[in-house]
Amino acid sequence: MSEKKIPYKIYLEEEEMPRRWYNVRADMKNKPAPLLNPGTLKPMTFEELRSVFCDELVRQELNDTDAYIDIPQEILDFYKMYRPAPLVRAYCLEKKLDTPAKIYYKFEGNNTSGSHKLNSAIAQAYYAKQQGLKGVTTETGAGQWGTALSMACSYFDLDCHVYMVKVSYEQKPFRREVMRTYGAQVTPSPSDTTEVGRKILSEFPGTGGSLGCAISEAVEAAGSREGYRYVLGSVLSQVLLHQSIIGEETKAALKKYNIKPDMIIGCAGGGSNLGGLISPFVGEKLRGEADYRIIAVEPASCPSLTRGKYVYDFCDTGKVCPLAKMYTLGSGFMPAPNHAGGLRYHGMSSVVSQLYDDGLIEATSVEQTAVFKAAEEFARVEGILPAPESSHAIKVAIDEAVKCRETGEEKTIVFGLTGTGYFDMVAYGKFHDGEMTDYVPSEEDLQKGFAGLPDVTV
Amino acid sequence: MSEKKIPYKIYLEEEEMPRRWYNVRADMKNKPAPLLNPGTLKPMTFEELRSVFCDELVRQELNDTDAYIDIPQEILDFYKMYRPAPLVRAYCLEKKLDTPAKIYYKFEGNNTSGSHKLNSAIAQAYYAKQQGLKGVTTETGAGQWGTALSMACSYFDLDCHVYMVKVSYEQKPFRREVMRTYGAQVTPSPSDTTEVGRKILSEFPGTGGSLGCAISEAVEAAGSREGYRYVLGSVLSQVLLHQSIIGEETKAALKKYNIKPDMIIGCAGGGSNLGGLISPFVGEKLRGEADYRIIAVEPASCPSLTRGKYVYDFCDTGKVCPLAKMYTLGSGFMPAPNHAGGLRYHGMSSVVSQLYDDGLIEATSVEQTAVFKAAEEFARVEGILPAPESSHAIKVAIDEAVKCRETGEEKTIVFGLTGTGYFDMVAYGKFHDGEMTDYVPSEEDLQKGFAGLPDVTV
Repeated sequence: MSEKKIPYKIYLEEEEMPRRWYNVRADMKNKPAPLLNPGTLKPMTFEELRSVFCDELVRQELNDTDAYIDIPQEILDFYKMYRPAPLVRAYCLEKKLDTPAKIYYKFEGNNTSGSHKLNSAIAQAYYAKQQGLKGVTTETGAGQWGTALSMACSYFDLDCHVYMVKVSYEQKPFRREVMRTYGAQVTPSPSDTTEVGRKILSEFPGTGGSLGCAISEAVEAAGSREGYRYVLGSVLSQVLLHQSIIGEETKAALKKYNIKPDMIIGCAGGGSNLGGLISPFVGEKLRGEADYRIIAVEPASCPSLTRGKYVYDFCDTGKVCPLAKMYTLGSGFMPAPNHAGGLRYHGMSSVVSQLYDDGLIEATSVEQTAVFKAAEEFARVEGILPAPESSHAIKVAIDEAVKCRETGEEKTIVFGLTGTGYFDMVAYGKFHDGEMTDYVPSEEDLQKGFAGLPDVTV
Repeated sequence: MSEKKIPYKIYLEEEEMPRRWYNVRADMKNKPAPLLNPGTLKPMTFEELRSVFCDELVRQELNDTDAYIDIPQEILDFYKMYRPAPLVRAYCLEKKLDTPAKIYYKFEGNNTSGSHKLNSAIAQAYYAKQQGLKGVTTETGAGQWGTALSMACSYFDLDCHVYMVKVSYEQKPFRREVMRTYGAQVTPSPSDTTEVGRKILSEFPGTGGSLGCAISEAVEAAGSREGYRYVLGSVLSQVLLHQSIIGEETKAALKKYNIKPDMIIGCAGGGSNLGGLISPFVGEKLRGEADYRIIAVEPASCPSLTRGKYVYDFCDTGKVCPLAKMYTLGSGFMPAPNHAGGLRYHGMSSVVSQLYDDGLIEATSVEQTAVFKAAEEFARVEGILPAPESSHAIKVAIDEAVKCRETGEEKTIVFGLTGTGYFDMVAYGKFHDGEMTDYVPSEEDLQKGFAGLPDVTV
């Protein structure tokens, strides 16, 4: 079959855009383990979950049988504002690396939230609006997810209340202002607006807060207000479903030019980007239609897939959420303070965890100075200044392309470039000033995290 | 002629991309006045200019006869990394405003420099490389132009030395880090690396610097090093030539869908974006092929077109550069300290000035709180968080669309959205906190600026 000339950037036309999300769970023989009620240790029911999440999202969370779910027209309309995301042929990077490999990246950063997070934010805001809710609450660390949700809620005229880890709120005011531009209420956490916040403040006066605490406040705030629900930006199966738009578009763009990837690489924190990117390709593997190497890349300082245990664990440090079976370092595990590269979640999406356990995907870990070096090398030739998170995938894509230079193989590499690093310049500055260090947790460090695992045998 | 369905975003295909810059000066009956040697008051010659700018750029600066100039293939290749910039139909904004007007914006912010500045940076870096130079120097205030030039120099492996106004260097470290990511050397100005810098430091110890001082240092640094030239990001006719890619793409995108604009709106500081956007449309007006309302929007606090004089003036506060005939407030004019919206240059491109003087374009000025209000309104429905500079055009586009709502006219409005505001969140924060004020210079303020005009009668 003759190959059409491949442009630098492949943009799908509006009529070529996917109109359905792909639910990889439907094709998985071994389904991801269900969320458990931490009290009864029984699978969370629709009724139990609907007090936290809005109804349609609970249905999606529990749905492991329907392979395709129609994307509502209102969400498709919103997608038009920032999608299709281009699939870019990294001609300049290939030239710089002098590799016979063909490198493509799916770039999700061309929107104000700066990342793929918007794909799920808009879906979650839409279903909240459909249910007639007044608003949603969430937590955010550095602010990427909070920004995405603020944009989505602004579009649907929903109230949005973000609990932002206090130290980020104070030290990284820019994302806070972006959220306020979109009309969100941003509260530094811990705060005196919730019971759990007041408790923590009295126990630890002057604390800078943590993501775990912010989750607890957001969940409490949603539960205590009429017409509110809590939303989460990663880890959940519903989020991976929404993020499958990344993989569906990538697949359509590759198909348009008859490109067959050999390997697909994505960074992995909670697993939302990775899961979204790889879902359709894993689906082909599961159905025996194609084979690909699929590589999850995580930071060596927070190595849940490569060094974690595959067990039930708490999703949050506050232990208020359901239990999930996943590769985990323990909910008390925290990456070392020198960790600047994001992807700091202690666990991993149940879907990604099961795929990894079944050998359908590989995982590797990389150290952060090497990640920033790859980020800078990429930026200088490809123009885009990548987010540290995304740069984990860049690092491994470069490594694989260099291997091709050595072996002469013309492999086709596709990786996910999840976002831009415009709000991460403090970390880049440390890298430039030689102040960035690496950290790999010792076995002892890991054991401490594992010691906090709940005793669940189901 | 039947209208094709117009997508949200019009992207040109690679083969539809303009391959020539349009030089509006060729079609102007009244040519822009030449740059003058400040010593002799005679037009600057090729020989005089080539000690400052590289040869091909001097030829472009002096060329007011060739209507089209081929874009070198290497620049077209670089363009592919971030162009075509989409022409976006602002469906959501139209709906929000409940207007029968059709609003389009040409979005130039989808690149790491965050603005249209990259269009000229890559051209200037290319010609420097072609001439076998080692590097270039420039000045930057908040860092937008410096970032663009850093990216361009990195691509062509040219040394890039940016003198950054010291107060910005210290208070806005993020753009500095972006420049360093692209390998640029960034020096806070005034510095002890130049004679003029040392002089200023001894006279004003502890000064935060100014753009005028940074220009002087950059010019001196280029002149004192073998194989270096100085480059400038706006005002010059060569820059408008490079920026004509904006207008050429816009014209091609409109033509593709048979759209006829009634008015074209752009923000105006030094005039690089405005000039680039409007050039092809002004060309049609000049050749009698079409008619459009063309509106330059400037800040009320720095109103060079609407309240300035059309005379010869210094281009820089240091008075080291040639004299240009332009609408100007005087090289000593500085917008009030509360001015946060950019576009703070005291003069205006000679090309834009002549077009305005000939009545081919209109000009209007707007106050900054209204600009930020428009920016936020736009962000909430269109998703993109605009640069304050770009938001001047948004403000007037919204005003014109609201007029259409009142009159029922279905006008087609095109405006230039030059960039994103991710590095302007301090200003957005002031707006959110109600700390932003307006300022319109008094007649007395203006007279002070005019008092510094040189006595040139040619």
